[in-house]
Amino acid sequence: MKQDYEKLNFAVGPVMSGEEVLEVASRNAPYFRTAEFSKTMLDCEKNLLTLADAPKNSRVVFLTGSGTAGMEAALLNTLSRNDKLLIVKGGSFGTRFCEIAEALGIPFEPIEIEMGKTLHKEDLDKFEDKGFTAFAVNLGETSTGVLYDIDLISDFCNRNNLFLIVDAVSTFLAEEISMEKSNIGALITGSQKALATMPGVALVFLSSDGIKRVENNKVASLYFDFKNYLLDGTRGQTPFTPAVSTLLQIAARVEKIIENGGVEYEIKKTADLANYFRTKIADYPFTLFAEVPSNAVTSLKVQGDNSAVTIFETLKNEYDIFICPNGGSLKETVFRVGHIGALETTDYDELFSALDDMKKRGIIK
Amino acid sequence: MKQDYEKLNFAVGPVMSGEEVLEVASRNAPYFRTAEFSKTMLDCEKNLLTLADAPKNSRVVFLTGSGTAGMEAALLNTLSRNDKLLIVKGGSFGTRFCEIAEALGIPFEPIEIEMGKTLHKEDLDKFEDKGFTAFAVNLGETSTGVLYDIDLISDFCNRNNLFLIVDAVSTFLAEEISMEKSNIGALITGSQKALATMPGVALVFLSSDGIKRVENNKVASLYFDFKNYLLDGTRGQTPFTPAVSTLLQIAARVEKIIENGGVEYEIKKTADLANYFRTKIADYPFTLFAEVPSNAVTSLKVQGDNSAVTIFETLKNEYDIFICPNGGSLKETVFRVGHIGALETTDYDELFSALDDMKKRGIIK
Repeated sequence: MKQDYEKLNFAVGPVMSGEEVLEVASRNAPYFRTAEFSKTMLDCEKNLLTLADAPKNSRVVFLTGSGTAGMEAALLNTLSRNDKLLIVKGGSFGTRFCEIAEALGIPFEPIEIEMGKTLHKEDLDKFEDKGFTAFAVNLGETSTGVLYDIDLISDFCNRNNLFLIVDAVSTFLAEEISMEKSNIGALITGSQKALATMPGVALVFLSSDGIKRVENNKVASLYFDFKNYLLDGTRGQTPFTPAVSTLLQIAARVEKIIENGGVEYEIKKTADLANYFRTKIADYPFTLFAEVPSNAVTSLKVQGDNSAVTIFETLKNEYDIFICPNGGSLKETVFRVGHIGALETTDYDELFSALDDMKKRGIIK
Repeated sequence: MKQDYEKLNFAVGPVMSGEEVLEVASRNAPYFRTAEFSKTMLDCEKNLLTLADAPKNSRVVFLTGSGTAGMEAALLNTLSRNDKLLIVKGGSFGTRFCEIAEALGIPFEPIEIEMGKTLHKEDLDKFEDKGFTAFAVNLGETSTGVLYDIDLISDFCNRNNLFLIVDAVSTFLAEEISMEKSNIGALITGSQKALATMPGVALVFLSSDGIKRVENNKVASLYFDFKNYLLDGTRGQTPFTPAVSTLLQIAARVEKIIENGGVEYEIKKTADLANYFRTKIADYPFTLFAEVPSNAVTSLKVQGDNSAVTIFETLKNEYDIFICPNGGSLKETVFRVGHIGALETTDYDELFSALDDMKKRGIIK
């Protein structure tokens, strides 16, 4: 059996990294309170803003933490007890937004969506003109693989004058996202998804509206207080020792993406892999679980008495392949296969060979 | 000029990593919701508790974040508005504890210590029997290189029945620390100091008293809520995607330390380097700034019209060596040289050669 880090990894984060990232990762983390590091970070921020099609005067906060730290810090900094937040709750990450709002004491109401389903206009109708001030959505609900309709959401927010917070942890660089066109106030992503660097950094993009909310807010945290990050960020620094190596990996990666032709190239690569996989997987006893699947990941519901957990465990232990299991009520019936990170079509061929073998052996029925 | 990551680094975090750490760092971060990763983490926690001489039933929380995240989360989880906290304030990190307590609304009083001085019995006398419930100290005040007297502090806390929180970010593995003997309730360290792995993970050790405080507390945060970490930690997991690579580096590093002979070996290595450096540096126009210097770092005050900033910049740009500059009021007069990370006496010889050359060139007078 191969070591875990040698296995072919179709999980949805951490994902496999490209050569340009692993090279940076293999180096010592340098001392960083220097003009050189500052310049790298300022260039990196500029590149990221381009990739998110961010409007003028937007900024990026580099927060050392998990994606959830980014979600919490975004809510904490841009909202208060005087807001009334709508949250799309269609899976684990929608639930997480609710738990964060609850913990922070931000008044909110969930829009309950059946797992695997997307958000429809009818789901929003009853929330029109109801005094809400903000809207939070996981654009891709990573737990179910569902993509929500950003245009539908953006129109609703514009019409109701809502501040829009988008968790794009698994959709940034995998789906078309324009902060400008969709009037997104805060956009969250993480280092370990399509950015394909080591986990441990959350990125929060703020529009000028978002920045205004941060500046007018007083938060009960030093570590999460974006005011300090925005201030130090003007000179390419962070208030506290960041995950220096991961930041340098992100800088190298976004430079490479821009060299390769920008965000369109990345999105197309992921969409092509998703299509390649989805076309072939139709021959197996699994059905697409997501009503509208995101490019980043395919969630599959097993048919008959197949077990999602057994498929995950067998692929890991006997074929050195990681797919992504589900938790909770979907544990036995749903598994996911990612399309982000350093993956090629040949990697999927390897996965299909393994699945074929498992069919022959009767592990997949 | 060498690249930043190739320079000889005497900064006090990030520091240079050993081979066993860089090897792990160079690998892909594997999928981690597995029995294999859980086992590695449970072993790692056990090893860490041994290194901290933690009493029975202690635990370690692995928090993805900077050292400051560890400081904030420790205060947030173990204290409340009903506590009355004493904070040793003798430099930037003592000040940071105060800022955190302020942000969290925890009532506190600072013990003001002149920068460069240590804590004396007389500093504590006026706080005896004054209704305090907790005590926070940066055992090594990294900004000034001062080591405080843990026995003095521990006796004071035991006598006054105070819950003791020790920031050991730069002293863990560099000074003798026994959670058990000193009755430490919460001990904080970071991945990028003497652990010498990539920055981005804070470790918070909790004694059973500390755990009790966590369990009886309700915190206004999801990300920082230790209850979730303690629960998932029982099976070697974390509630949110952690900095997987850094955790695996920590696991490899502590295994190596224990192989090498344990914490005593690490402390001796650092103390020996500090002594080697301090003996030789006596011939240069710098004086020791710290009344009681910690093993981890030597802070030096420049004599005459020497400039600490110029020395830092020249070493960086012309000799490919990082020392650690100071900020604020000490910027022009104090610099620091670290003794943690993958350093050898020959590295100091290289530093002294550079200093000698700078003397010849009249940059050091």
